[in-house]
Amino acid sequence: MNPLLSALAGDAEIDALLSDDAQLTAMLAVERALASASADVGWITNDAADSIGNAIAGFVPDRADLAAGMAQDGVVVPALVRQLRAAVAEPHRAALHKGATSQDVIDTALMLQLARVFDVYETRLAALLERLDALGVDAGPRPLLAHTRMQAALPTTWAAKIESWRAPLRRHLGALAAMRRMLLVVQLGGPVGDRGSFAGHGDSIASAMARRLDLGLAEPWQATRDPIVGLGNLLALISGALGKLGADVALLAQSEVGALRLEGAGGSSAMAHKANPVNAEILVALARSNAGLSGILGQAMVHEYERSGAAWTLEWLTLPPMLVTTGASLRLGVRLVEQIHLV
Amino acid sequence: MNPLLSALAGDAEIDALLSDDAQLTAMLAVERALASASADVGWITNDAADSIGNAIAGFVPDRADLAAGMAQDGVVVPALVRQLRAAVAEPHRAALHKGATSQDVIDTALMLQLARVFDVYETRLAALLERLDALGVDAGPRPLLAHTRMQAALPTTWAAKIESWRAPLRRHLGALAAMRRMLLVVQLGGPVGDRGSFAGHGDSIASAMARRLDLGLAEPWQATRDPIVGLGNLLALISGALGKLGADVALLAQSEVGALRLEGAGGSSAMAHKANPVNAEILVALARSNAGLSGILGQAMVHEYERSGAAWTLEWLTLPPMLVTTGASLRLGVRLVEQIHLV
Amino acid sequence: MNPLLSALAGDAEIDALLSDDAQLTAMLAVERALASASADVGWITNDAADSIGNAIAGFVPDRADLAAGMAQDGVVVPALVRQLRAAVAEPHRAALHKGATSQDVIDTALMLQLARVFDVYETRLAALLERLDALGVDAGPRPLLAHTRMQAALPTTWAAKIESWRAPLRRHLGALAAMRRMLLVVQLGGPVGDRGSFAGHGDSIASAMARRLDLGLAEPWQATRDPIVGLGNLLALISGALGKLGADVALLAQSEVGALRLEGAGGSSAMAHKANPVNAEILVALARSNAGLSGILGQAMVHEYERSGAAWTLEWLTLPPMLVTTGASLRLGVRLVEQIHLV
Amino acid sequence: MNPLLSALAGDAEIDALLSDDAQLTAMLAVERALASASADVGWITNDAADSIGNAIAGFVPDRADLAAGMAQDGVVVPALVRQLRAAVAEPHRAALHKGATSQDVIDTALMLQLARVFDVYETRLAALLERLDALGVDAGPRPLLAHTRMQAALPTTWAAKIESWRAPLRRHLGALAAMRRMLLVVQLGGPVGDRGSFAGHGDSIASAMARRLDLGLAEPWQATRDPIVGLGNLLALISGALGKLGADVALLAQSEVGALRLEGAGGSSAMAHKANPVNAEILVALARSNAGLSGILGQAMVHEYERSGAAWTLEWLTLPPMLVTTGASLRLGVRLVEQIHLV
Repeated sequence: MNPLLSALAGDAEIDALLSDDAQLTAMLAVERALASASADVGWITNDAADSIGNAIAGFVPDRADLAAGMAQDGVVVPALVRQLRAAVAEPHRAALHKGATSQDVIDTALMLQLARVFDVYETRLAALLERLDALGVDAGPRPLLAHTRMQAALPTTWAAKIESWRAPLRRHLGALAAMRRMLLVVQLGGPVGDRGSFAGHGDSIASAMARRLDLGLAEPWQATRDPIVGLGNLLALISGALGKLGADVALLAQSEVGALRLEGAGGSSAMAHKANPVNAEILVALARSNAGLSGILGQAMVHEYERSGAAWTLEWLTLPPMLVTTGASLRLGVRLVEQIHLV
Repeated sequence: MNPLLSALAGDAEIDALLSDDAQLTAMLAVERALASASADVGWITNDAADSIGNAIAGFVPDRADLAAGMAQDGVVVPALVRQLRAAVAEPHRAALHKGATSQDVIDTALMLQLARVFDVYETRLAALLERLDALGVDAGPRPLLAHTRMQAALPTTWAAKIESWRAPLRRHLGALAAMRRMLLVVQLGGPVGDRGSFAGHGDSIASAMARRLDLGLAEPWQATRDPIVGLGNLLALISGALGKLGADVALLAQSEVGALRLEGAGGSSAMAHKANPVNAEILVALARSNAGLSGILGQAMVHEYERSGAAWTLEWLTLPPMLVTTGASLRLGVRLVEQIHLV
Repeated sequence: MNPLLSALAGDAEIDALLSDDAQLTAMLAVERALASASADVGWITNDAADSIGNAIAGFVPDRADLAAGMAQDGVVVPALVRQLRAAVAEPHRAALHKGATSQDVIDTALMLQLARVFDVYETRLAALLERLDALGVDAGPRPLLAHTRMQAALPTTWAAKIESWRAPLRRHLGALAAMRRMLLVVQLGGPVGDRGSFAGHGDSIASAMARRLDLGLAEPWQATRDPIVGLGNLLALISGALGKLGADVALLAQSEVGALRLEGAGGSSAMAHKANPVNAEILVALARSNAGLSGILGQAMVHEYERSGAAWTLEWLTLPPMLVTTGASLRLGVRLVEQIHLV
Repeated sequence: MNPLLSALAGDAEIDALLSDDAQLTAMLAVERALASASADVGWITNDAADSIGNAIAGFVPDRADLAAGMAQDGVVVPALVRQLRAAVAEPHRAALHKGATSQDVIDTALMLQLARVFDVYETRLAALLERLDALGVDAGPRPLLAHTRMQAALPTTWAAKIESWRAPLRRHLGALAAMRRMLLVVQLGGPVGDRGSFAGHGDSIASAMARRLDLGLAEPWQATRDPIVGLGNLLALISGALGKLGADVALLAQSEVGALRLEGAGGSSAMAHKANPVNAEILVALARSNAGLSGILGQAMVHEYERSGAAWTLEWLTLPPMLVTTGASLRLGVRLVEQIHLV
């Protein structure tokens, strides 16, 4: 997303957590944890693990070579491992990445990145719920004309309206917490995903890696992507809940309805009197986008054989925009609730 | 779906559970439970509840009038209540549907229908897991050449392959059980969803209805549709897991790969030698369809005001095909696993 | 779609054109045209063509066997050809379907069905444009308060509003006409789509079939599905244009805006005063559904090898609901425009 | 898309044509053409147009202010016009952007950008067709075992295979040319899209702008977005055609099939013997992504009132990734065809 559009409908904080730099840092952490865990269980020597740790600590990547490797191999890890190996003192080079495959590094690094993203989401969801609680205290008992099927219906209260915004967000906050335990797990499978390349040490290395990286433990899941798609589904639910809030606010703020007024609404290049419910509209757009993207991500479930380059790349194309969109939904949701003034 | 296509890619059993008849039966059960619960708490008299119960017991709907009402009102309940009321002896007519709105009836009836659909899914998932277990016992230790990125990779075992098919299905079986508790709840909100029309009796009527209908209890959720969309997401995951199985089977059964053979594979009108992996292909098609449909269902999260006819109708257009598709995925998944013969 | 929902949001006329009966009739017409065309060019004898014509004229299908064949082979044609062959007098049985493959029959039959569907669409589009023209004559010069970004903006005219509804429909009517020429063509390729099975007669048979069936002529297209996906895209544009009309009408008919009133609007089971813009809402739902379905249909472009059962079945799951949805959009669009009364 | 992923699956050339800089340049060209055209017809003075031209020629934007304006107003033009106006010598400031609205500038600027994007597409499509022609000359008569429903079928020729890749691309090249005439048109409507703000000069200003910008002429289309969605549909068809090519190549290059070999295929971090069909896989991923994105873009057809911030923003979120994806499909398609060596 271009910087200008991102200022409106993106999320710089999530962008940073998903940047190439962030991914590189996470991948290096994974290689280091793999080496340490491998030494823990005697799969490589302690000297090798130290050597690898030192190499990683001082590693300066050749980014052009990484990009070329990515274009060539479809995954950045072969080039990265090549560069890293050159920085490891012999005879320890073979101990780097020993038994592992590219996907082990990338999927586990993603989990490290997602843990930070979840932090942001939880903070914003909590802030949003707090503001909705405050709005409820303030506005709750006040009457509000309910509308059904786009027609004025009967009086209800602001309390009921606000609760309809809050209830799904509370559910999603709970789902995020549950997903931390279920989703944020180590990937360690080796070339074909059965840990066969670790000569019997795979389970204990995975366990040690999980401890060191503060991730959960799981059987290899390189070709069973339902947890990733499940994450996408939750992201779409979060954006969807905020899209509903946005739609309601845009309707309630209509000139002719006037049930609320937005502080600091958007201006027009041609009509000075306009107070456009910009953030409300963007929330609707983000909801529709994330819902549709979840339908694309779901296509990645059809993962051929032990690893599908097509399905996996489809995740890379789809999940990051969904994560940013969700962040933007939460960012703008907080802002929009702050803008609401009951009339 | 036409009968011919349904024989291939549909599900007659799920069709029946979602038919107009099944919905009508469920709606009548809801109206009866509402009346009984309303009598329980003194919102209507016991005589009225009995009268309503009798009317429902002997009710024969005028289907043409229901269809006309559906086209006119966008929802069948106004016509249904009109017909039912005519069958209730006075002075009890006003007690029928008292305080309730169309959506209370339709959403709660859907929950009753879904409970039966979940029964079917769970039975089939269990059968599928059993057959995969059996295949694992039989085939597990046998070697299998793994493939990554559509290229032969390294040897693995059938055990690892079968586990990659089984693991997501086990997760989804657990998710279905969890969804029974979370999703299958009463809807009772009245015209604008705040139970205001029940003069303070709403919570206790909802509670009594839940008991009588063997559903969970929940606050009104008429405009917060994340549980429905969440169900759709789970359906897409189930079809997706089976689409992965289908893709694997179609690849492993290729003439040139020949890692398995399918008993009773499909024939061709022009090539007598063909043994087409029809069920495997259909599983892929169903997975792609359900994934995309979940992206459509997610659009229904943007639910305007207290009830959106547009968003709600979008659910009706989308969820039933998803439920049928999921049933078909499970039906064909069981059959396909039975067809597998290792070579 | 169930009959009740179909009364609201479906299309009985399109359903009939896409029914199993209609498909069977079309497939028989294709087999007959293939036989006649084959005789025309000497690929089979005139006696054989006559025999086949007689068998088809008196053919009564065994539907249970067709359904079983569909489930077994993934396509109904092998069973159909088996049944038909049994009805052809020897020595002419081998002349039936000679050189052809299932897909030749099904795709060409679909074109015959689509030609009738296009008739319906064009009639309705013309009726819709006529009603919009009439509304424009009546209402055009009258002022209307324009709204941008959900806020009252500046005065415009009803003429401008009506033209914004009409312009895309005019374009789509033109696109339908163009698609008749481009899309409605014979499929004749034989088992692997290169006409190799016709021993040099393929091109002339295809040409004769096209003439006899009043379809266009084309190279085999069994694995290049862009024309089908392109049709789906047009269908989504039609539903989308009417979804925009529906959204506008629902907004303009809001209780607080009141720029128009709908004759015969929908009623509520709980609120007697409601005049719900049901048809407008359904148009929005249909637009969202068809847009999403076009994104599913597009997945069928990735058609493996010379014929993909997965991709082709995905078309069967997706295109018929899109055709019905489009029909429903047009049906309800005409009705909605008739309901509009300016205030 | 991050730079690393972009090296694999993105398109730097299209990125540049859609960058903030490119958009800013195009918007300035539109404001300048509007001023010149307005002077042509006497809506502003020639002195004013000169003054505006000078201001634009020397304009250095305050990007932080533009971003802030974007976030505030939902559209960058109000801030841009404010900055530009400050650079215009009085008494000519009011002549800048006179009668126009933000959308006039943004939509018309998009058309200028799209014209350049189309240039790139056409060049690449031509290159791709040329390489396929060359491959056909080389390989055409050679036999190839055809596969249907993922099973070996009968012999065909490479010529037929190559033609199945080429035919859709030829159609899409024609469709692009047609779209130049239909889609690449001036947007000029003023605040509510009826040219009412130009006091009768609107049509002639639009006509002069079209001439000056080398765009087509059209009635205002600010709320009728079918041409934009139609573009998205074509983009998905292009990516889809190349996804089919990618799927075929990945299948034909399978270790066990070996009908072709890819020069310079991708390597693995763990398996030195692998020759991964990376570009083929990416083409499949891009096809699935673009197909799904077209289903999201279609949601933007439901454009409320005279301008929907929600629907319009949804276009901004969706169309640029589609344009980049299409560019990447073509880029990788050319490369993949070059990599093909028949075995």
